[in-house]
Amino acid sequence: MSIEQIRVSEIFGPTIQGEGALIGQPTVFVRTGGCDYRCSWCDTLHAVDSAHRDEWCPMTPEAILMQVEILSGGNPLTVSLSGGNPAIQPLGGLIELGRKEGYRFALETQGSLAKDWFADLDVLTLSPKPPSSGMTTDWQRLAECVEAAGPETQTVLKVVVFDEADYAFARDVSDRYPHLSCFLQPGNHTPPAAADTDATIDMAGIMERMRWLVDRVTSDKWYAATVLPQLHTMIWGNLRGV
Amino acid sequence: MSIEQIRVSEIFGPTIQGEGALIGQPTVFVRTGGCDYRCSWCDTLHAVDSAHRDEWCPMTPEAILMQVEILSGGNPLTVSLSGGNPAIQPLGGLIELGRKEGYRFALETQGSLAKDWFADLDVLTLSPKPPSSGMTTDWQRLAECVEAAGPETQTVLKVVVFDEADYAFARDVSDRYPHLSCFLQPGNHTPPAAADTDATIDMAGIMERMRWLVDRVTSDKWYAATVLPQLHTMIWGNLRGV
Repeated sequence: MSIEQIRVSEIFGPTIQGEGALIGQPTVFVRTGGCDYRCSWCDTLHAVDSAHRDEWCPMTPEAILMQVEILSGGNPLTVSLSGGNPAIQPLGGLIELGRKEGYRFALETQGSLAKDWFADLDVLTLSPKPPSSGMTTDWQRLAECVEAAGPETQTVLKVVVFDEADYAFARDVSDRYPHLSCFLQPGNHTPPAAADTDATIDMAGIMERMRWLVDRVTSDKWYAATVLPQLHTMIWGNLRGV
Repeated sequence: MSIEQIRVSEIFGPTIQGEGALIGQPTVFVRTGGCDYRCSWCDTLHAVDSAHRDEWCPMTPEAILMQVEILSGGNPLTVSLSGGNPAIQPLGGLIELGRKEGYRFALETQGSLAKDWFADLDVLTLSPKPPSSGMTTDWQRLAECVEAAGPETQTVLKVVVFDEADYAFARDVSDRYPHLSCFLQPGNHTPPAAADTDATIDMAGIMERMRWLVDRVTSDKWYAATVLPQLHTMIWGNLRGV
């Protein structure tokens, strides 16, 4: 029995991954609680704001995997480790345990904290936060994350873009790591408050930024970029648990 | 100068690829005119119905590549060969010419006709048509297409799904080629007529089928499938040329 417990905000699925490199692929989400960032437009405050920490359940890797197995019907699939910032949780044991059963693991983090178990992931999405978030990227820490993942893990970049400053930031990030795929994602100005489970969403605004982003990328001839919206937001709005 | 001419319906871009394996990636589209199929829900009748053949311009590979280079600003990117059924056109010379300049080529076809130049593609999307289309798949021909593409080309399956019969068809196709990635795409009941450039689209219906398809795939534990809508339809509606 592992002694290190993981703070879990929610486990749900299977549904499809709504964004980034694995868009459209079936997955079960394990969302951990707690974050070292406070992004202005955070869309998962219920897993970030410590006012909600009573809702975060300490679970062993074995208990989490059991829940994932129940949800997936025992058929291995990709487990998406999300947050909050899942990198602040001791997830190495869960990944090791799950991989033995045939599960694959993808993790998304802002890249503020490197862990040696990044090398055991199938996919690591590093999503440094642009100026509009109000956060500042520690480039040394980000470099440590890329290094920790090593050659066996598929590492990709993903940057949320609201405006020109964010776009310039995305270009900078991509220029630092030209060998990594870079996903650009239009921002959502209407994230749900922590207590909302089905807040109204500004779909027209998101689509307008999506069109702008496509124009921006193509007029810059930045053909190595991939531009994708959050599909789950388009399909289910801000509804939680899908 | 090549003597074989290609019938071109339209060349446009760069925009993003809206569906399938390359979703979100910048691309220039070369849409050829003419098709051996007449799908009931065809969304590119202007490139299929021979009533429009006067709009299809015979072009040499050199002229097509020149147009692609102008649109892309001379920076190589992925060229998406679409139709109609582009496999009925002599595209081998264009692909050879473009690859020398660093362009990549992706082609989508129903898989009714195999060409040896499939082996020179970067990505071949085989999209056999489900029962709702009114068409019947020739399985031998489809097998010839997979074989023609060979090991160097990334070959993927994509099936449009409107209903249960289509879904069963998709499972059958995937079972025949378990080593190929399979993309499921909710159908669009409101394709534009050939003359319309901006017809109203039943977005609610598409999203409803999208949710149904995700439910269907996850309750079947078909975790190898990828479920993706037509992003360009969601972003630009039925508008042509994006």
